[in-house]
Amino acid sequence: MAGDKSAFKAGCPYGTHRVIEPKGSLPQAALRLDNSGDIFDNEILLDVRTLNIDAASFKQIVSEGPEGASRSELEEHVASSVMRIVSERGKMQNPVTGSGGMLLGTVREFGPKVQGARGAKVGDLVATLVSLSLTPLRLESIQRVDLDKDQVDVVGQAVLFQSGPFAVIPEDIGERLALALLDVAGAPAQAARLVQPDDSVLILGAGGKSGLICSSVARQKAGPNARIIGLAHGKASTARAKTLGAADVLLSADATDAIGIMKQVMAHNDGKKVDLTINCVNVPGTEMASILSTRQRGKVYFFSMATSFTAAALGAEGVGADVDLLIGNGYAEGHAKIALDLVKEDAKLKAILEGMFHG
Amino acid sequence: MAGDKSAFKAGCPYGTHRVIEPKGSLPQAALRLDNSGDIFDNEILLDVRTLNIDAASFKQIVSEGPEGASRSELEEHVASSVMRIVSERGKMQNPVTGSGGMLLGTVREFGPKVQGARGAKVGDLVATLVSLSLTPLRLESIQRVDLDKDQVDVVGQAVLFQSGPFAVIPEDIGERLALALLDVAGAPAQAARLVQPDDSVLILGAGGKSGLICSSVARQKAGPNARIIGLAHGKASTARAKTLGAADVLLSADATDAIGIMKQVMAHNDGKKVDLTINCVNVPGTEMASILSTRQRGKVYFFSMATSFTAAALGAEGVGADVDLLIGNGYAEGHAKIALDLVKEDAKLKAILEGMFHG
Repeated sequence: MAGDKSAFKAGCPYGTHRVIEPKGSLPQAALRLDNSGDIFDNEILLDVRTLNIDAASFKQIVSEGPEGASRSELEEHVASSVMRIVSERGKMQNPVTGSGGMLLGTVREFGPKVQGARGAKVGDLVATLVSLSLTPLRLESIQRVDLDKDQVDVVGQAVLFQSGPFAVIPEDIGERLALALLDVAGAPAQAARLVQPDDSVLILGAGGKSGLICSSVARQKAGPNARIIGLAHGKASTARAKTLGAADVLLSADATDAIGIMKQVMAHNDGKKVDLTINCVNVPGTEMASILSTRQRGKVYFFSMATSFTAAALGAEGVGADVDLLIGNGYAEGHAKIALDLVKEDAKLKAILEGMFHG
Repeated sequence: MAGDKSAFKAGCPYGTHRVIEPKGSLPQAALRLDNSGDIFDNEILLDVRTLNIDAASFKQIVSEGPEGASRSELEEHVASSVMRIVSERGKMQNPVTGSGGMLLGTVREFGPKVQGARGAKVGDLVATLVSLSLTPLRLESIQRVDLDKDQVDVVGQAVLFQSGPFAVIPEDIGERLALALLDVAGAPAQAARLVQPDDSVLILGAGGKSGLICSSVARQKAGPNARIIGLAHGKASTARAKTLGAADVLLSADATDAIGIMKQVMAHNDGKKVDLTINCVNVPGTEMASILSTRQRGKVYFFSMATSFTAAALGAEGVGADVDLLIGNGYAEGHAKIALDLVKEDAKLKAILEGMFHG
């Protein structure tokens, strides 16, 4: 069958042919996808090894676990939640947060129209760079849940569309690090565009994965005369941000305390609000801390999936803040290379991320 | 009392002193505000005349009305919904959409710290330029509901904070037109910044209030060699956009049909995607039509309150669209003047809006 090109059906570049319900919608908005392993002419079939669940989604699933649960009970809860979601929707899209994550797997089969795409061949280890929220997925079993890394090892198959970017995992970077890094590959590419020399930059969630990456990029792009202020919550987070050393000032505070944070930021920036705020905090209710800490005509980049559109739009209006509010786009031209090059160049960042995602 | 300055309590510029629950949050995020008429030293007390409910909120309230209801039954339903929401929350913030709107009223009293703010005096007719979602409001009665204009005439009082902009209604523009215009005052100011000469611009919802305004601005800023493509749904909307005549092409289509719209837009733009898309459609699920119609490194401006943050962020990633995604900010420096000047300059726009919002 696989060798007979005429046996492949023609697919839409955006994967609408996989949408079961509602008809006519795109895969991301769909309630249910066709996750069959019979691929169309423009699809790639992958044997899935690991799901890297989006942080906001993983947190939400864990939060629904039984009260007072042990670690192994929580792992059990995550495993059954993931199985249930994937069997209901044909994709790993959290119904509450709407978000997904990405996956690591090996190429099993190419449709004839995408043969050898991006230099990959059958058997190559690749990471998908599109959200799991639109990736057809079928799971046979769950092997292991890692509560610290938001990762789930599975046996299953996934389908990649023609328009969906992916990256072959380079041999000089560990699998899990590459996966964790590529999951937020949009962050370094977007941060590199936004940060200007000598800017003052506030990074909320500076000790998390995206926050550490953005801090490293901000330091590089803004230069030695810039003022980088990192905000972290919790001991481990704060310790990581301190080890990285990219920020001039590290604040330890609750990112939902808008006015408290604005005051602390101004106190550490010569009484002024910052030019740019990058929000990487995966908890709801941090829009106003970002907006109030940013100067008139400055920019706020919301990389956190916990951001509320209306809270940001109306919140800025309510306080008369004339700031550009940007929705974090997970894709940018060349983002995988930018992310992988970053850890090759920043040895401290690489070591910290390896510590977080070894295994 | 009013003459005795020492009788006024000191308030926070952002109005946190009015938050009852949850403590420490900002008024926009609060579940309940203190709507008492005893003002603080930095507040302005208004006698409210008309509430201009946000379009997404109004639509949602109407949609919850009894099935097969008559017009007067629907008006009754809206009136009781508004009374209930305001009495529960101390502000007119729709619990489902999170959005508010703005109001028209006369100045009743100034706190001593904001005496004569923005050149206003007691008795002046003013429009608030902050969302009702954060404005303390107390209603005595509802006088009239206008289903076509999303407006509700009331007897009641509202409180303006020091940081909240407002505008004195000019005498040469009708009250209702001014109110309708100022409610979306961010739109023309932001559109004017985004549109560049010779741009191709797609405007979704081109026959609605914000869409008409953005079309007029886009034509002005982009010039005669630009390509302005308007999309409208429904007869009345399409007729208004046609009368305005700002667009080179008017498409009549459902804005949730992402791929269909992308194809139509490209067919009318020499096979290319547009430089800028402005989304003014107050229905959910139009993020992907906006993203798929916009070229790589182009911009999408989401002015619609029905926008989903995750749908936009993950949707762009899912199709590998490297576009800037902007959250519509209702505030911009000088936005009230820009909006009022626009209708003075564009007589056709003024006539159409007067037709929509005469009173």
